[in-house]
Amino acid sequence: MVTSTYQVTGMTCGHCVNAVSSEVGAIPGVSDVQVDLASGQVTVTSADALDTDTVRAAVDEAGYDLADA
Amino acid sequence: MVTSTYQVTGMTCGHCVNAVSSEVGAIPGVSDVQVDLASGQVTVTSADALDTDTVRAAVDEAGYDLADA
Repeated sequence: MVTSTYQVTGMTCGHCVNAVSSEVGAIPGVSDVQVDLASGQVTVTSADALDTDTVRAAVDEAGYDLADA
Repeated sequence: MVTSTYQVTGMTCGHCVNAVSSEVGAIPGVSDVQVDLASGQVTVTSADALDTDTVRAAVDEAGYDLADA
């Protein structure tokens, strides 16, 4: 199991949290997504290390942006 | 046709707009709902004048509040 934390910008409410959780949670191998609305931190648990571009694409699909590390 | 404008607080994003539009649009007799996110103004078109408490209940159901007039 690998746990990675990403910074997402633009989330403003619980609906935004749900949208990001849903898209990131649909990435193959992801078993858990925890989103902290106040900080924008998204913590992802996956079987193997995730490609950042894959996470970025999922966040973008939800309508938000991954902040540069 | 009657057009009424209400002030809704707490909407922060497009998902919020959709939630309010959906709930208010489900009130019997309502034919159109226009939500302006920036101002919080919700303009409702209905066959007859709406009871404010009915609109307030729908906005509350969506998770937001109707500002006092």
